[in-house]
Parts: sequence; structure tokens; C-alpha cells
Amino acid sequence: MTAFLDRIGIDLPIIQAPMAGVQGSALAVAVSNCGGLGSLPCAMLTGAQIRAEVAAIRAATSKPFNVNFFCHTPPEPDAVREAAWLAALLPYYEELEVDPSTIPTGPGRAPFTSEVADLLEEIRPPVVSFHFGLPSDELLARVKATGAFVLSSATTVEEAVWLEARGADAVIAQGVEAGGHRGMFLTEDISTQVGTMALVSQAVDAVKVPVIAAGGIADHRGVRAALGLGAAAVQIGTAYLLCPEATTSRVHRAALRGAGARDTVLTRLFSGRPARGIVNRLIREIGAMNEVAPEFPLASLALAPLRSKAESLGFGDFSPLWSGENASGCAEIPAAELTRRLAGVGSKQIASA
Amino acid sequence: MTAFLDRIGIDLPIIQAPMAGVQGSALAVAVSNCGGLGSLPCAMLTGAQIRAEVAAIRAATSKPFNVNFFCHTPPEPDAVREAAWLAALLPYYEELEVDPSTIPTGPGRAPFTSEVADLLEEIRPPVVSFHFGLPSDELLARVKATGAFVLSSATTVEEAVWLEARGADAVIAQGVEAGGHRGMFLTEDISTQVGTMALVSQAVDAVKVPVIAAGGIADHRGVRAALGLGAAAVQIGTAYLLCPEATTSRVHRAALRGAGARDTVLTRLFSGRPARGIVNRLIREIGAMNEVAPEFPLASLALAPLRSKAESLGFGDFSPLWSGENASGCAEIPAAELTRRLAGVGSKQIASA
Repeated sequence: MTAFLDRIGIDLPIIQAPMAGVQGSALAVAVSNCGGLGSLPCAMLTGAQIRAEVAAIRAATSKPFNVNFFCHTPPEPDAVREAAWLAALLPYYEELEVDPSTIPTGPGRAPFTSEVADLLEEIRPPVVSFHFGLPSDELLARVKATGAFVLSSATTVEEAVWLEARGADAVIAQGVEAGGHRGMFLTEDISTQVGTMALVSQAVDAVKVPVIAAGGIADHRGVRAALGLGAAAVQIGTAYLLCPEATTSRVHRAALRGAGARDTVLTRLFSGRPARGIVNRLIREIGAMNEVAPEFPLASLALAPLRSKAESLGFGDFSPLWSGENASGCAEIPAAELTRRLAGVGSKQIASA
Repeated sequence: MTAFLDRIGIDLPIIQAPMAGVQGSALAVAVSNCGGLGSLPCAMLTGAQIRAEVAAIRAATSKPFNVNFFCHTPPEPDAVREAAWLAALLPYYEELEVDPSTIPTGPGRAPFTSEVADLLEEIRPPVVSFHFGLPSDELLARVKATGAFVLSSATTVEEAVWLEARGADAVIAQGVEAGGHRGMFLTEDISTQVGTMALVSQAVDAVKVPVIAAGGIADHRGVRAALGLGAAAVQIGTAYLLCPEATTSRVHRAALRGAGARDTVLTRLFSGRPARGIVNRLIREIGAMNEVAPEFPLASLALAPLRSKAESLGFGDFSPLWSGENASGCAEIPAAELTRRLAGVGSKQIASA
């Protein structure tokens, strides 16, 4: 563990998970400044936005931070499938009196490209993490040549071995408990997705690079357990969602605080790829894994106007309410305090030290 | 943890999971004798067999042991559904040249009844565990009046709370990683089943009785992690399946040793209830959760002759190859040695003590 922390230059074995859509530089700064590794999700940002957010991080901390990218292959547009999705959603458009012509176009979530590699060569972030595998060998080589430490998520032992063989400097073992998008990339079958308890030690045995545990870790007990399994650090997302530095929406915050936060499910409705979120009306009525939603990331487009209207009325019925299976660690406290609690360096320990 | 171990009178925080069909008294004796809690699965035994097996345990150890029962409600026979199941299996009967008239009748797995309570009043086992909830209040009161310590499995926080409220003395938090039958009883929806990492600490927070962690725990790292989450002990099944004291079949042992042991899935094909096993031909061709298999425990009947014939030919194509998501702890060593390794009291520690 210590070797890994020294290598990336952090004091606490806590990586704040990059969470596109619910956080920006403020959360990353807070976590990095207190000794963990803050992360900036970049998949929904333009180059100019990435540049501005990284500048904001560097203006507020001299500590290491992580920038995160998706490396999916953008799908071919499929007019028939997109029409079917819109047809499935049309009753909701009518109910909410939303005009379907307001559906946005464009990718929504952009993959890692040569232009992004250009940008990384310019801004040289200390840590770069990927979701959905790794970019091409050529692009990855360019990222590594900047000196960045490279992370990616594995959801199975096979994926961990694949990532190590292709050059990841450490592997995030993402157990099925984790919130948000599954990092799965060697399979599309969600029945292959294993629990954190089963995945971490098997991944530790299968690869030589450090393994970071993710999924179901909500408090210091979970951190201690993950390190006990052999992880070099943990990556935690859900617990940060109620922090003031997160930009989590009002409906999402309400869902996380409610008793229903225990009812999460893997769903492909919101983006086209399986991701874990709190069960809401859309999931209940259409079915979490219904193939009517088009390929990633296109499914999100036709939902956007519905989501926007419903949220303005105070409903999260059409919003992705991302959460892991253990939201018990969510606390409305500054991210630095949460990070210290997770690491077990609370005020008590400090006082007695 | 210590209070729990003292209460049931064991030295090591290891409960050997009761595994109907793959073990009898020999495995229970070996584990109890070395300081863990051995378990005898009784769901597939007659009263006379239970009496004989408990006598065998008592002849071989003076230590505490656990007897395990199912408490499902037997289904109404459904001739239409059973005929559909047979029709789905008929091509396999033809391929293997098996006569469908050899299909056995009878329940296969019996629920806990008044007659079993009579038996427990006679044999007075120190620990009694249940799967699929608890028996009726009246029957449970009779079991508790014998002085037995009562355990049952919870697969969600709600089930843990339910079990405590109805009188369980401790709750086994069975994470989704676990092999064999899910203990789920408040829901039939497998998407509600959460990982061990997420379940254990939330269950610990939700109930006052001790929580025992199960699922994905294969070695001392896993035991340490589970205790770190707040568990009072662990329950481990899969790791014992290759021990000489287990009666695991040849095809099952081969599957556990193979690379395919990583591919497990929840399936209802073998019994009618979701249970985790290694993917084999039947699962691949019919579909793990296909509703064509009748209600628990009836699905097993029409499979029995196929399974028997295939096993005699060396194939596990129709056998339930129960395994959790982490078979890496399986070792062909005596159960006592495995138990000590799991608990971290190996020969080294003993030598240096």
C-alpha cells in the first residue's frame, strides 16, 4: 500500500471516484488537498472545459489529481432503434407536455481521442484513469509518455489481467456493488459481474500491479476490509454525493437520503450501458435492462428533455440516480472531513496523536 | 466477535456452511474438532438419517455443531408446468438414451415440520440454522426451547431486520457472491441481491444480534476483511468442497479445479430457486433463470435421471455445480487444516507461538 501511495504522491489510500454529471473540480480539489486523490470526470467536458477545470484544480492545490476519460467506441447511429426508443418514451412526453423536437443531438459522452491526447501532452496531469478498457496502444503510449500514472477499471479477473498486459499501472477492481457505469469491456453480460469481496483478492493474485478496490465501500470499516483483502487503496464514489462540493442534483440528493436508496439496480436505460442507480419510475415501468434503449451513449439523448422537465417539477422519475449498493456512508459534510473519516484519521485520532 | 464465539462455544470465527448433497457428518466433525463450527445439512435427509448423522457427530466430537434446515413452503404440484419442463428436457433424454419413466417422485428437499421439531427436542443440537427464512413462530419457539442457538440467512438488510425481529439469535449476511441457494425469502427478485461488502456493514448497523458474513470469502484475507466490516464470524462453503471429508462428486470437483470455475451464475434450473453454480451446458442452453423450470424444489426431479446418466459418463452437463464467485480457496487438504488457514492460525503461527 505505502509503495503505491508514494508512487502517486498521496497520503491517504482514498481515491475519490470520478463521477461525470455530479461533480467538477471543486470536489477533486477538496479530496486532493486533504491527502486523498481527487478525480475530475472529463467524459462530458469539451477540451476547453477540461483545460479550465484542470487550471482550477492547479490554482487550488499543489497535490496530485486524476483526470478520467471513457474509451468506448462510438456506435453507428441506428435510426430504427432510436425511433423505437422515442416511441417507448412518447407517453411520458405527452404526460409531461414536453416537445420531442427539443431532443438534443450529438454524442453526450465523448470517447478518448487523439485531440484529447494532445491536450494531455499540454496539461500533463499526474494521474489519468480510463473507464471501459484503455485507448488504442498508440494513444495510451502518448499518455504514458507524459509521465502520467495510468489507471483503469476491471470488473472481472480476466479484465484485470488484460489491463495489466496492455500497460495499466494499477487496476481498479470494480465490484458489482459499485454505483454508476460498470467499467466492463470484455463482455456485455452483466451476470459475469462479481462482488468486491470475491473480485479484489482474486485480482490481487492475478496481477503484479497494485489493485484498487471499488464497490460497496462506504465507511472506514469498508476501507479496512478492502485493504485486508490486499488492495493498495480504495476508490469511493457514492459516499461523496451529498458533500457540498458535489454538484449532485436536488432530486438525486433526495433519493440518496431516502429509504429507497437501498433499492439499486444495474440499468442500461439512461445511457445504453449497464450502470447502477436507485430504482425509479422509468426503470420500474420499462425494465432496467430493456434492449429498447439504444447503444451507449445514445440512450441518454431522448431522455434529456424528460429528465429536465421532471427535475424542474421536483421529480427524479427520468434521472439517472447513480448510487452503489451501500449509500450508508453519504454525509452532508465537507469532502475533506469525509475523506479523513474514510481513512480512519478522524478528529479523535488526531487529538490523541 | 469474542462474545459470539463464547456464546456458541467455538474458538475460531469460522462456520462451515451446510451444503446439502456434497457433505455429511464427516466434514462437520473435522471442522468442529479443530475449533470452528461444523454444520450438517439436513434438508435432504430423513428423520432416521438425521438421527444417525448427529449420533456420528457426537461419537467423534464433543464440540458444538450446527444442523441446518430449509423452511420453504412446499409448492402445489402443477402438472402443466412439470410437463413443460419435461418437454424442455426431452431432447436430452433422447440424446443420453434415458427413460423418462425413471423420474423420481417426492419432494426431494423437505421443509422444517412439526416432526422435525420433535426430533430436535430429542437430539438437542447446540446450534440450528435455517435457510429461506424461519419456521412458524410456534415451531421456532419449540426449537429455541431446546436451548439451541438459532441462525438464519439474510440476503438484504430488510431480511436481517425481519429475522432479528422474529427471534434469530444471529443473522448470516449472505452476499450475492455466495455459492448454492440464495437464502432470500422476502423477495424473489434476484436484482435485489447485494454484495457481501455492501451487505455486512449495513446489516451490522441495522440489527443488534451478531452478523456472520458469507459470500466470496475464500482465504484468510477474506476472513480478515469480513471481521473488519464488523462481522462476528464468517460462514464459508465453497473452499471446503475439495476437502477429502466432503462428498463432492467427481464432476463437481473437476469443475471447481478448472478455469471455468470463475464463470458462476445464479440459476433456478436445478431446483426452482436461485442458486449460484458454475455455468454448464444446461444453463447455457436453457438459460439460467428460465421460468420453464417448476417451483422449488420440483425442478430437480426431472433432472435427476439425466444428471445421473451424465455423471456416470463423466459429464457435469446436468449437475448443479454449486460454487461461490471465489473458488480460489478450494484446496485438497483436510478440512481441519483448511479451517486453521482460514482463521490465520497456520502451522507457522503455531510454531512461533
